[in-house]
Amino acid sequence: MWDLIRTYRKYDPATKSSLEVLFLYPGVKAIALHRIAHMFYRAGIPFIPRAISEWSRFLTGIDIHPGARIGKNLIIDHGMGVVIGETAEVGDHCLIFHGVTLGGVDFSPVKRHPTLGNHVVVGAGAKILGNITIGDHARIGANSVVIKSVPEHCTATGIPAKVVNSKGVVPGEELKHDQID
Amino acid sequence: MWDLIRTYRKYDPATKSSLEVLFLYPGVKAIALHRIAHMFYRAGIPFIPRAISEWSRFLTGIDIHPGARIGKNLIIDHGMGVVIGETAEVGDHCLIFHGVTLGGVDFSPVKRHPTLGNHVVVGAGAKILGNITIGDHARIGANSVVIKSVPEHCTATGIPAKVVNSKGVVPGEELKHDQID
Amino acid sequence: MWDLIRTYRKYDPATKSSLEVLFLYPGVKAIALHRIAHMFYRAGIPFIPRAISEWSRFLTGIDIHPGARIGKNLIIDHGMGVVIGETAEVGDHCLIFHGVTLGGVDFSPVKRHPTLGNHVVVGAGAKILGNITIGDHARIGANSVVIKSVPEHCTATGIPAKVVNSKGVVPGEELKHDQID
Repeated sequence: MWDLIRTYRKYDPATKSSLEVLFLYPGVKAIALHRIAHMFYRAGIPFIPRAISEWSRFLTGIDIHPGARIGKNLIIDHGMGVVIGETAEVGDHCLIFHGVTLGGVDFSPVKRHPTLGNHVVVGAGAKILGNITIGDHARIGANSVVIKSVPEHCTATGIPAKVVNSKGVVPGEELKHDQID
Repeated sequence: MWDLIRTYRKYDPATKSSLEVLFLYPGVKAIALHRIAHMFYRAGIPFIPRAISEWSRFLTGIDIHPGARIGKNLIIDHGMGVVIGETAEVGDHCLIFHGVTLGGVDFSPVKRHPTLGNHVVVGAGAKILGNITIGDHARIGANSVVIKSVPEHCTATGIPAKVVNSKGVVPGEELKHDQID
Repeated sequence: MWDLIRTYRKYDPATKSSLEVLFLYPGVKAIALHRIAHMFYRAGIPFIPRAISEWSRFLTGIDIHPGARIGKNLIIDHGMGVVIGETAEVGDHCLIFHGVTLGGVDFSPVKRHPTLGNHVVVGAGAKILGNITIGDHARIGANSVVIKSVPEHCTATGIPAKVVNSKGVVPGEELKHDQID
Protein backbone atom coordinates (compact mmCIF):
# COMPACT_ATOMS: atom_id res chain seq x y z
CA MET A 1 0.00 0.00 0.00
CA TRP A 2 2.79 2.45 0.82
CA ASP A 3 4.17 1.77 -2.59
CA LEU A 4 0.84 2.68 -4.15
CA ILE A 5 0.61 5.88 -2.12
CA ARG A 6 4.12 6.84 -3.21
CA THR A 7 3.07 6.23 -6.80
CA TYR A 8 0.09 8.57 -6.40
CA ARG A 9 2.29 11.29 -4.92
CA LYS A 10 4.71 10.99 -7.80
CA TYR A 11 1.88 10.97 -10.34
CA ASP A 12 0.07 14.00 -8.98
CA PRO A 13 2.38 16.82 -7.88
CA ALA A 14 -0.59 18.67 -6.36
CA THR A 15 -0.79 16.04 -3.62
CA LYS A 16 0.29 17.57 -0.34
CA SER A 17 0.65 14.56 1.96
CA SER A 18 0.38 10.76 2.15
CA LEU A 19 -2.54 11.14 4.54
CA GLU A 20 -4.39 13.05 1.82
CA VAL A 21 -3.80 10.21 -0.62
CA LEU A 22 -4.86 7.56 1.88
CA PHE A 23 -8.09 9.25 2.92
CA LEU A 24 -9.19 11.24 -0.14
CA TYR A 25 -8.34 9.22 -3.25
CA PRO A 26 -11.12 6.81 -4.20
CA GLY A 27 -8.72 4.75 -6.35
CA VAL A 28 -6.63 3.90 -3.28
CA LYS A 29 -9.66 2.72 -1.29
CA ALA A 30 -10.96 0.68 -4.23
CA ILE A 31 -7.65 -1.16 -4.66
CA ALA A 32 -7.29 -1.82 -0.91
CA LEU A 33 -10.80 -3.28 -0.71
CA HIS A 34 -10.24 -5.25 -3.91
CA ARG A 35 -7.12 -6.90 -2.44
CA ILE A 36 -9.27 -8.19 0.45
CA ALA A 37 -12.17 -9.25 -1.81
CA HIS A 38 -9.80 -11.03 -4.18
CA MET A 39 -8.27 -12.99 -1.26
CA PHE A 40 -11.72 -14.26 -0.20
CA TYR A 41 -12.57 -14.96 -3.87
CA ARG A 42 -9.50 -17.14 -4.33
CA ALA A 43 -10.32 -18.98 -1.12
CA GLY A 44 -13.66 -19.93 -2.72
CA ILE A 45 -15.73 -18.21 -0.03
CA PRO A 46 -19.23 -17.24 -1.31
CA PHE A 47 -21.10 -13.91 -0.95
CA ILE A 48 -18.39 -12.07 1.06
CA PRO A 49 -16.17 -11.07 -1.92
CA ARG A 50 -19.10 -9.64 -3.88
CA ALA A 51 -20.41 -7.90 -0.75
CA ILE A 52 -17.02 -6.20 -0.34
CA SER A 53 -16.89 -5.15 -4.00
CA GLU A 54 -20.43 -3.73 -3.85
CA TRP A 55 -19.51 -1.79 -0.70
CA SER A 56 -16.43 -0.48 -2.46
CA ARG A 57 -18.56 0.52 -5.47
CA PHE A 58 -20.91 2.43 -3.16
CA LEU A 59 -18.02 4.24 -1.45
CA THR A 60 -15.91 4.99 -4.51
CA GLY A 61 -18.00 4.57 -7.69
CA ILE A 62 -15.41 1.99 -8.83
CA ASP A 63 -16.76 -1.49 -9.60
CA ILE A 64 -14.01 -4.16 -9.63
CA HIS A 65 -15.14 -7.79 -9.71
CA PRO A 66 -13.40 -9.77 -6.93
CA GLY A 67 -12.02 -12.15 -9.55
CA ALA A 68 -10.06 -9.48 -11.50
CA ARG A 69 -6.27 -9.71 -11.28
CA ILE A 70 -4.71 -6.30 -10.67
CA GLY A 71 -0.95 -5.66 -10.84
CA LYS A 72 1.21 -3.32 -8.79
CA ASN A 73 0.71 0.42 -8.50
CA LEU A 74 -2.45 0.79 -10.57
CA ILE A 75 -3.70 4.37 -10.44
CA ILE A 76 -7.45 4.81 -10.97
CA ASP A 77 -7.90 8.57 -11.30
CA HIS A 78 -11.27 10.09 -10.28
CA GLY A 79 -12.70 6.61 -10.82
CA MET A 80 -16.47 7.19 -10.94
CA GLY A 81 -18.05 4.66 -13.31
CA VAL A 82 -15.00 2.37 -13.73
CA VAL A 83 -16.03 -1.29 -14.28
CA ILE A 84 -13.46 -4.11 -14.30
CA GLY A 85 -14.78 -7.60 -15.14
CA GLU A 86 -14.19 -10.95 -13.45
CA THR A 87 -11.54 -12.32 -15.83
CA ALA A 88 -9.79 -9.01 -16.59
CA GLU A 89 -6.05 -8.72 -15.90
CA VAL A 90 -4.15 -5.47 -15.39
CA GLY A 91 -0.32 -5.33 -15.40
CA ASP A 92 1.93 -3.10 -13.31
CA HIS A 93 2.10 0.71 -13.30
CA CYS A 94 -1.08 1.27 -15.34
CA LEU A 95 -3.19 4.43 -15.27
CA ILE A 96 -6.96 4.21 -15.74
CA PHE A 97 -9.30 7.20 -15.74
CA HIS A 98 -12.94 7.47 -14.70
CA GLY A 99 -15.64 5.83 -16.80
CA VAL A 100 -13.35 3.11 -18.18
CA THR A 101 -14.74 -0.40 -18.69
CA LEU A 102 -12.73 -3.60 -19.04
CA GLY A 103 -15.73 -5.66 -20.13
CA GLY A 104 -16.89 -8.69 -22.07
CA VAL A 105 -18.95 -9.32 -25.19
CA ASP A 106 -20.20 -12.82 -24.43
CA PHE A 107 -20.70 -15.22 -21.56
CA SER A 108 -18.07 -17.83 -22.21
CA PRO A 109 -17.21 -19.34 -18.86
CA VAL A 110 -13.50 -18.91 -19.59
CA LYS A 111 -11.57 -15.67 -20.06
CA ARG A 112 -13.92 -13.08 -21.56
CA HIS A 113 -12.37 -9.79 -20.39
CA PRO A 114 -9.24 -7.92 -21.59
CA THR A 115 -5.65 -8.18 -20.46
CA LEU A 116 -3.64 -4.97 -20.01
CA GLY A 117 0.17 -5.06 -20.10
CA ASN A 118 2.41 -2.80 -18.01
CA HIS A 119 2.44 1.02 -18.17
CA VAL A 120 -0.85 1.14 -20.11
CA VAL A 121 -2.86 4.40 -20.02
CA VAL A 122 -6.63 4.28 -20.63
CA GLY A 123 -8.40 7.63 -21.20
CA ALA A 124 -11.68 8.60 -19.55
CA GLY A 125 -14.80 6.80 -20.74
CA ALA A 126 -12.98 4.25 -22.92
CA LYS A 127 -14.53 0.76 -23.20
CA ILE A 128 -12.19 -2.21 -23.80
CA LEU A 129 -14.28 -5.26 -24.63
CA GLY A 130 -13.60 -8.96 -24.99
CA ASN A 131 -10.63 -11.25 -24.44
CA ILE A 132 -8.11 -8.96 -26.15
CA THR A 133 -4.67 -7.72 -25.14
CA ILE A 134 -3.42 -4.15 -24.74
CA GLY A 135 0.38 -4.17 -25.04
CA ASP A 136 2.91 -2.54 -22.71
CA HIS A 137 3.03 1.28 -22.85
CA ALA A 138 -0.03 1.42 -25.13
CA ARG A 139 -2.48 4.32 -24.82
CA ILE A 140 -6.24 4.31 -25.37
CA GLY A 141 -7.97 7.62 -26.18
CA ALA A 142 -10.94 8.97 -24.22
CA ASN A 143 -14.40 7.51 -25.10
CA SER A 144 -12.83 4.96 -27.50
CA VAL A 145 -14.37 1.50 -27.94
CA VAL A 146 -11.59 -1.07 -28.30
CA ILE A 147 -12.57 -4.51 -29.63
CA LYS A 148 -9.24 -5.63 -31.13
CA SER A 149 -5.86 -6.10 -29.47
CA VAL A 150 -3.53 -3.08 -29.43
CA PRO A 151 0.25 -3.68 -29.82
CA GLU A 152 2.92 -2.32 -27.48
CA HIS A 153 3.70 1.41 -27.56
CA CYS A 154 0.71 2.12 -29.85
CA THR A 155 -2.15 4.53 -29.40
CA ALA A 156 -5.74 3.59 -30.30
CA THR A 157 -8.69 5.99 -30.60
CA GLY A 158 -12.24 6.14 -31.98
CA ILE A 159 -15.33 3.93 -32.28
CA PRO A 160 -14.26 1.27 -33.09
CA ALA A 161 -10.73 2.20 -32.00
CA LYS A 162 -8.06 2.25 -34.70
CA VAL A 163 -4.42 1.77 -33.89
CA VAL A 164 -1.91 4.52 -34.76
CA ASN A 165 1.84 4.29 -34.32
CA SER A 166 3.10 5.78 -31.10
CA LYS A 167 4.93 8.37 -33.19
CA GLY A 168 1.90 8.94 -35.40
CA VAL A 169 -1.09 11.20 -35.01
CA VAL A 170 -4.76 10.75 -35.73
CA PRO A 171 -5.84 13.34 -38.36
CA GLY A 172 -6.60 16.55 -36.52
CA GLU A 173 -5.48 15.12 -33.22
CA GLU A 174 -2.22 14.91 -31.37
CA LEU A 175 -2.31 12.66 -28.35
CA LYS A 176 -0.13 13.97 -25.58
CA HIS A 177 1.15 12.62 -22.32
CA ASP A 178 -1.86 10.85 -21.04
CA GLN A 179 -5.16 11.96 -22.38
CA ILE A 180 -7.05 13.49 -19.48
CA ASP A 181 -6.65 14.49 -15.92
CA MET B 1 -39.58 -9.19 -8.07
CA TRP B 2 -38.90 -12.93 -7.89
CA ASP B 3 -39.26 -13.01 -11.63
CA LEU B 4 -36.60 -10.31 -11.95
CA ILE B 5 -34.24 -12.16 -9.61
CA ARG B 6 -34.73 -15.35 -11.63
CA THR B 7 -33.88 -13.37 -14.77
CA TYR B 8 -30.64 -12.10 -13.21
CA ARG B 9 -29.64 -15.63 -12.19
CA LYS B 10 -30.26 -16.88 -15.70
CA TYR B 11 -28.39 -13.92 -17.22
CA ASP B 12 -25.32 -14.20 -15.03
CA PRO B 13 -24.14 -17.79 -14.43
CA ALA B 14 -21.63 -16.52 -11.84
CA THR B 15 -24.50 -15.67 -9.49
CA LYS B 16 -24.50 -18.09 -6.59
CA SER B 17 -27.84 -17.41 -4.86
CA SER B 18 -31.02 -15.34 -5.00
CA LEU B 19 -29.97 -13.62 -1.79
CA GLU B 20 -26.84 -12.42 -3.56
CA VAL B 21 -28.96 -10.95 -6.36
CA LEU B 22 -31.38 -9.30 -3.94
CA PHE B 23 -28.74 -7.67 -1.77
CA LEU B 24 -25.79 -7.06 -4.08
CA TYR B 25 -27.12 -6.09 -7.50
CA PRO B 26 -27.72 -2.33 -7.80
CA GLY B 27 -30.03 -2.84 -10.80
CA VAL B 28 -32.46 -4.85 -8.67
CA LYS B 29 -32.61 -2.17 -5.96
CA ALA B 30 -33.06 0.59 -8.54
CA ILE B 31 -36.01 -1.17 -10.20
CA ALA B 32 -37.67 -1.98 -6.86
CA LEU B 33 -37.41 1.66 -5.72
CA HIS B 34 -38.56 2.88 -9.14
CA ARG B 35 -41.73 0.76 -8.91
CA ILE B 36 -42.60 2.56 -5.66
CA ALA B 37 -41.66 6.02 -6.98
CA HIS B 38 -43.68 5.45 -10.17
CA MET B 39 -46.76 4.49 -8.11
CA PHE B 40 -46.56 7.78 -6.18
CA TYR B 41 -45.88 9.65 -9.44
CA ARG B 42 -49.01 8.27 -11.09
CA ALA B 43 -51.02 9.18 -8.00
CA GLY B 44 -49.95 12.80 -8.55
CA ILE B 45 -48.21 13.08 -5.18
CA PRO B 46 -45.50 15.81 -5.17
CA PHE B 47 -41.91 15.64 -3.87
CA ILE B 48 -42.03 11.99 -2.64
CA PRO B 49 -41.43 10.31 -6.03
CA ARG B 50 -38.39 12.48 -6.79
CA ALA B 51 -37.10 12.01 -3.24
CA ILE B 52 -37.25 8.22 -3.74
CA SER B 53 -35.49 8.41 -7.11
CA GLU B 54 -32.73 10.64 -5.69
CA TRP B 55 -32.26 8.21 -2.80
CA SER B 56 -32.06 5.36 -5.30
CA ARG B 57 -29.50 7.32 -7.35
CA PHE B 58 -27.38 7.82 -4.22
CA LEU B 59 -27.53 4.11 -3.32
CA THR B 60 -27.08 2.66 -6.80
CA GLY B 61 -25.72 5.31 -9.18
CA ILE B 62 -28.81 4.68 -11.34
CA ASP B 63 -31.01 7.73 -12.04
CA ILE B 64 -34.52 6.76 -13.22
CA HIS B 65 -37.10 9.54 -13.34
CA PRO B 66 -40.28 8.46 -11.49
CA GLY B 67 -42.29 9.06 -14.67
CA ALA B 68 -40.40 6.52 -16.81
CA ARG B 69 -42.34 3.40 -17.82
CA ILE B 70 -40.24 0.26 -17.37
CA GLY B 71 -41.33 -3.17 -18.64
CA LYS B 72 -40.79 -6.60 -17.12
CA ASN B 73 -37.41 -8.12 -16.28
CA LEU B 74 -35.18 -5.18 -17.20
CA ILE B 75 -31.58 -5.94 -16.28
CA ILE B 76 -29.39 -2.90 -15.56
CA ASP B 77 -25.87 -4.33 -15.31
CA HIS B 78 -23.33 -2.48 -13.12
CA GLY B 79 -25.54 0.57 -13.57
CA MET B 80 -23.33 3.46 -12.43
CA GLY B 81 -24.22 6.56 -14.45
CA VAL B 82 -27.44 5.26 -16.05
CA VAL B 83 -29.99 8.05 -16.66
CA ILE B 84 -33.57 7.31 -17.79
CA GLY B 85 -35.76 10.34 -18.56
CA GLU B 86 -39.32 11.14 -17.52
CA THR B 87 -41.09 10.12 -20.73
CA ALA B 88 -38.83 7.17 -21.64
CA GLU B 89 -40.43 3.75 -22.14
CA VAL B 90 -38.61 0.43 -21.89
CA GLY B 91 -40.18 -2.85 -23.09
CA ASP B 92 -39.79 -6.32 -21.59
CA HIS B 93 -36.59 -8.37 -21.21
CA CYS B 94 -34.19 -5.53 -22.06
CA LEU B 95 -30.56 -5.34 -21.00
CA ILE B 96 -28.94 -1.96 -20.27
CA PHE B 97 -25.33 -1.49 -19.21
CA HIS B 98 -23.72 1.20 -17.05
CA GLY B 99 -23.41 4.74 -18.37
CA VAL B 100 -26.43 4.47 -20.69
CA THR B 101 -28.69 7.52 -21.12
CA LEU B 102 -32.27 7.50 -22.43
CA GLY B 103 -32.43 11.26 -22.75
CA GLY B 104 -34.04 14.20 -24.54
CA VAL B 105 -32.91 16.90 -26.92
CA ASP B 106 -35.53 19.52 -26.18
CA PHE B 107 -38.07 20.50 -23.57
CA SER B 108 -41.33 19.74 -25.31
CA PRO B 109 -43.86 19.03 -22.57
CA VAL B 110 -44.95 15.87 -24.40
CA LYS B 111 -42.91 12.75 -25.08
CA ARG B 112 -39.26 13.77 -25.47
CA HIS B 113 -37.40 10.58 -24.49
CA PRO B 114 -36.90 7.28 -26.40
CA THR B 115 -39.00 4.15 -26.50
CA LEU B 116 -37.25 0.76 -26.35
CA GLY B 117 -39.00 -2.36 -27.64
CA ASN B 118 -38.57 -5.83 -26.14
CA HIS B 119 -35.27 -7.73 -25.87
CA VAL B 120 -33.22 -4.60 -26.65
CA VAL B 121 -29.54 -4.56 -25.58
CA VAL B 122 -27.81 -1.20 -24.98
CA GLY B 123 -23.99 -1.24 -24.60
CA ALA B 124 -22.11 0.65 -21.90
CA GLY B 125 -21.97 4.43 -22.24
CA ALA B 126 -24.44 4.66 -25.16
CA LYS B 127 -26.68 7.75 -25.32
CA ILE B 128 -30.12 7.39 -26.94
CA LEU B 129 -31.60 10.85 -27.41
CA GLY B 130 -35.00 12.20 -28.35
CA ASN B 131 -38.44 10.73 -29.03
CA ILE B 132 -37.16 7.86 -31.18
CA THR B 133 -37.87 4.14 -31.17
CA ILE B 134 -35.47 1.22 -30.79
CA GLY B 135 -37.10 -1.90 -32.28
CA ASP B 136 -37.39 -5.35 -30.69
CA HIS B 137 -34.14 -7.33 -30.43
CA ALA B 138 -32.08 -4.31 -31.61
CA ARG B 139 -28.58 -3.78 -30.21
CA ILE B 140 -26.78 -0.50 -29.57
CA GLY B 141 -22.96 -0.50 -29.43
CA ALA B 142 -20.96 0.87 -26.50
CA ASN B 143 -20.47 4.69 -26.40
CA SER B 144 -22.75 5.19 -29.43
CA VAL B 145 -24.93 8.30 -29.74
CA VAL B 146 -28.30 7.33 -31.25
CA ILE B 147 -30.48 10.15 -32.57
CA LYS B 148 -32.56 8.26 -35.15
CA SER B 149 -34.88 5.28 -34.70
CA VAL B 150 -33.34 1.81 -35.07
CA PRO B 151 -35.43 -0.96 -36.68
CA GLU B 152 -36.02 -4.41 -35.16
CA HIS B 153 -33.14 -6.90 -35.07
CA CYS B 154 -30.64 -4.24 -36.22
CA THR B 155 -27.41 -3.14 -34.64
CA ALA B 156 -26.39 0.53 -34.46
CA THR B 157 -22.94 1.88 -33.55
CA GLY B 158 -20.89 5.09 -33.72
CA ILE B 159 -21.32 8.85 -33.29
CA PRO B 160 -23.88 9.45 -34.66
CA ALA B 161 -24.94 5.79 -34.63
CA LYS B 162 -25.43 4.14 -38.01
CA VAL B 163 -27.68 1.13 -38.46
CA VAL B 164 -26.21 -2.13 -39.77
CA ASN B 165 -28.19 -5.25 -40.57
CA SER B 166 -28.29 -7.72 -37.73
CA LYS B 167 -26.36 -10.12 -39.96
CA GLY B 168 -23.95 -7.40 -41.03
CA VAL B 169 -20.76 -6.14 -39.47
CA VAL B 170 -19.30 -2.69 -39.03
CA PRO B 171 -15.94 -2.53 -40.87
CA GLY B 172 -13.35 -3.94 -38.52
CA GLU B 173 -15.93 -4.84 -35.95
CA GLU B 174 -18.04 -7.87 -35.25
CA LEU B 175 -20.68 -7.30 -32.63
CA LYS B 176 -21.25 -10.39 -30.56
CA HIS B 177 -23.77 -11.50 -28.02
CA ASP B 178 -24.27 -8.36 -26.08
CA GLN B 179 -21.49 -5.87 -26.21
CA ILE B 180 -20.00 -5.70 -22.72
CA ASP B 181 -20.14 -7.34 -19.38
CA MET C 1 -27.87 30.35 -4.28
CA TRP C 2 -31.42 31.63 -4.74
CA ASP C 3 -30.39 32.78 -8.17
CA LEU C 4 -29.18 29.27 -9.00
CA ILE C 5 -32.41 27.71 -7.75
CA ARG C 6 -34.42 30.14 -9.86
CA THR C 7 -32.31 29.13 -12.86
CA TYR C 8 -33.06 25.44 -12.26
CA ARG C 9 -36.77 26.14 -12.01
CA LYS C 10 -36.71 28.07 -15.27
CA TYR C 11 -34.62 25.35 -16.93
CA ASP C 12 -36.79 22.42 -15.89
CA PRO C 13 -40.52 23.11 -16.07
CA ALA C 14 -41.21 19.80 -14.30
CA THR C 15 -39.79 21.25 -11.09
CA LYS C 16 -42.59 21.80 -8.62
CA SER C 17 -40.94 23.87 -5.87
CA SER C 18 -37.72 25.57 -4.77
CA LEU C 19 -37.50 23.11 -1.87
CA GLU C 20 -37.42 20.28 -4.39
CA VAL C 21 -34.53 21.93 -6.20
CA LEU C 22 -32.64 22.63 -2.98
CA PHE C 23 -32.94 19.11 -1.58
CA LEU C 24 -33.15 16.85 -4.61
CA TYR C 25 -30.87 18.22 -7.32
CA PRO C 26 -27.31 16.94 -6.99
CA GLY C 27 -25.97 19.79 -9.14
CA VAL C 28 -27.16 22.36 -6.59
CA LYS C 29 -25.46 20.55 -3.69
CA ALA C 30 -22.24 20.13 -5.67
CA ILE C 31 -22.03 23.84 -6.50
CA ALA C 32 -22.83 24.90 -2.92
CA LEU C 33 -20.10 22.61 -1.53
CA HIS C 34 -17.69 23.74 -4.24
CA ARG C 35 -18.16 27.40 -3.27
CA ILE C 36 -17.04 26.51 0.27
CA ALA C 37 -14.15 24.29 -0.89
CA HIS C 38 -12.96 26.99 -3.32
CA MET C 39 -12.92 29.57 -0.52
CA PHE C 40 -10.65 27.36 1.62
CA TYR C 41 -8.53 26.58 -1.47
CA ARG C 42 -7.93 30.27 -2.20
CA ALA C 43 -7.03 30.81 1.45
CA GLY C 44 -4.26 28.24 0.98
CA ILE C 45 -5.62 25.89 3.66
CA PRO C 46 -4.47 22.26 3.12
CA PHE C 47 -6.54 19.04 3.19
CA ILE C 48 -9.93 20.66 3.99
CA PRO C 49 -10.80 21.76 0.40
CA ARG C 50 -10.08 18.30 -1.04
CA ALA C 51 -11.95 16.66 1.86
CA ILE C 52 -15.01 18.76 1.01
CA SER C 53 -14.79 17.96 -2.70
CA GLU C 54 -14.46 14.22 -1.98
CA TRP C 55 -17.47 14.38 0.33
CA SER C 56 -19.39 16.19 -2.41
CA ARG C 57 -18.33 13.53 -4.92
CA PHE C 58 -19.62 10.81 -2.58
CA LEU C 59 -22.96 12.59 -2.10
CA THR C 60 -23.55 13.69 -5.68
CA GLY C 61 -21.29 11.76 -8.06
CA ILE C 62 -19.91 15.14 -9.20
CA ASP C 63 -16.15 15.63 -8.82
CA ILE C 64 -15.12 19.32 -8.95
CA HIS C 65 -11.55 20.15 -7.92
CA PRO C 66 -11.54 22.93 -5.30
CA GLY C 67 -9.33 25.02 -7.60
CA ALA C 68 -11.83 25.16 -10.49
CA ARG C 69 -13.38 28.56 -11.19
CA ILE C 70 -17.13 28.27 -11.76
CA GLY C 71 -19.28 31.16 -13.00
CA LYS C 72 -22.85 32.10 -12.14
CA ASN C 73 -25.86 29.83 -12.57
CA LEU C 74 -24.10 26.69 -13.81
CA ILE C 75 -26.59 23.85 -14.16
CA ILE C 76 -25.13 20.34 -13.83
CA ASP C 77 -27.99 18.05 -14.86
CA HIS C 78 -28.07 14.50 -13.39
CA GLY C 79 -24.35 14.93 -12.78
CA MET C 80 -23.12 11.39 -12.07
CA GLY C 81 -19.56 11.05 -13.37
CA VAL C 82 -18.85 14.76 -14.00
CA VAL C 83 -15.16 15.65 -13.45
CA ILE C 84 -13.93 19.26 -13.49
CA GLY C 85 -10.16 19.77 -13.18
CA GLU C 86 -8.15 22.13 -10.99
CA THR C 87 -7.44 24.83 -13.59
CA ALA C 88 -10.75 24.60 -15.47
CA GLU C 89 -12.85 27.75 -15.81
CA VAL C 90 -16.58 27.83 -16.53
CA GLY C 91 -18.39 31.03 -17.52
CA ASP C 92 -21.92 32.10 -16.62
CA HIS C 93 -25.19 30.36 -17.50
CA CYS C 94 -23.62 27.11 -18.74
CA LEU C 95 -25.34 23.73 -18.85
CA ILE C 96 -23.34 20.54 -18.30
CA PHE C 97 -24.80 17.03 -18.40
CA HIS C 98 -23.74 13.88 -16.56
CA GLY C 99 -20.51 12.14 -17.52
CA VAL C 100 -18.82 15.33 -18.78
CA THR C 101 -15.08 15.82 -18.13
CA LEU C 102 -13.18 19.11 -18.24
CA GLY C 103 -9.78 17.44 -18.06
CA GLY C 104 -6.11 17.73 -18.92
CA VAL C 105 -3.68 15.96 -21.21
CA ASP C 106 -0.43 16.71 -19.42
CA PHE C 107 0.90 17.78 -16.06
CA SER C 108 2.13 21.29 -16.74
CA PRO C 109 1.91 23.15 -13.45
CA VAL C 110 0.14 26.04 -15.19
CA LYS C 111 -3.28 26.02 -16.82
CA ARG C 112 -3.92 22.52 -18.20
CA HIS C 113 -7.74 22.33 -18.24
CA PRO C 114 -10.32 23.97 -20.56
CA THR C 115 -12.06 27.31 -20.33
CA LEU C 116 -15.77 27.50 -21.12
CA GLY C 117 -17.36 30.80 -22.13
CA ASN C 118 -20.89 31.84 -21.23
CA HIS C 119 -24.07 29.96 -22.23
CA VAL C 120 -22.10 26.85 -23.26
CA VAL C 121 -23.97 23.51 -23.40
CA VAL C 122 -22.01 20.25 -23.02
CA GLY C 123 -23.84 17.00 -23.86
CA ALA C 124 -23.73 13.87 -21.71
CA GLY C 125 -20.45 11.95 -21.64
CA ALA C 126 -18.44 14.55 -23.59
CA LYS C 127 -14.74 14.93 -22.70
CA ILE C 128 -13.10 18.35 -23.17
CA LEU C 129 -9.34 17.97 -22.76
CA GLY C 130 -6.44 20.37 -22.44
CA ASN C 131 -6.02 24.12 -22.17
CA ILE C 132 -8.52 24.96 -24.92
CA THR C 133 -11.39 27.41 -25.08
CA ILE C 134 -15.07 26.75 -25.80
CA GLY C 135 -16.65 30.00 -27.03
CA ASP C 136 -19.86 31.62 -25.84
CA HIS C 137 -23.07 29.82 -26.83
CA ALA C 138 -21.12 26.86 -28.26
CA ARG C 139 -22.57 23.34 -27.99
CA ILE C 140 -20.72 20.05 -27.58
CA GLY C 141 -22.46 16.83 -28.66
CA ALA C 142 -22.90 13.81 -26.38
CA ASN C 143 -19.86 11.47 -26.02
CA SER C 144 -17.65 13.82 -28.09
CA VAL C 145 -13.94 14.17 -27.35
CA VAL C 146 -12.90 17.82 -27.82
CA ILE C 147 -9.16 18.53 -28.07
CA LYS C 148 -9.23 21.78 -30.06
CA SER C 149 -10.85 25.10 -29.23
CA VAL C 150 -14.43 25.61 -30.44
CA PRO C 151 -15.48 29.12 -31.62
CA GLU C 152 -18.55 31.00 -30.38
CA HIS C 153 -21.99 29.81 -31.48
CA CYS C 154 -20.54 26.63 -33.05
CA THR C 155 -21.43 23.01 -32.46
CA ALA C 156 -18.77 20.30 -32.20
CA THR C 157 -19.37 16.53 -32.29
CA GLY C 158 -17.49 13.24 -32.74
CA ILE C 159 -14.16 11.65 -31.76
CA PRO C 160 -12.17 13.80 -32.20
CA ALA C 161 -14.85 16.50 -32.24
CA LYS C 162 -15.21 18.48 -35.45
CA VAL C 163 -16.68 21.95 -35.49
CA VAL C 164 -19.82 22.65 -37.55
CA ASN C 165 -21.41 26.05 -38.03
CA SER C 166 -24.22 26.75 -35.63
CA LYS C 167 -26.56 26.80 -38.62
CA GLY C 168 -25.04 23.63 -40.07
CA VAL C 169 -25.77 19.99 -39.43
CA VAL C 170 -23.58 16.94 -39.07
CA PRO C 171 -24.49 14.42 -41.82
CA GLY C 172 -27.48 12.47 -40.57
CA GLU C 173 -27.72 14.53 -37.45
CA GLU C 174 -29.53 17.66 -36.46
CA LEU C 175 -28.48 18.98 -33.09
CA LYS C 176 -31.40 20.58 -31.33
CA HIS C 177 -31.85 22.71 -28.29
CA ASP C 178 -29.46 21.09 -25.94
CA GLN C 179 -28.55 17.54 -26.68
CA ILE C 180 -29.96 15.45 -23.85
CA ASP C 181 -32.11 15.71 -20.82
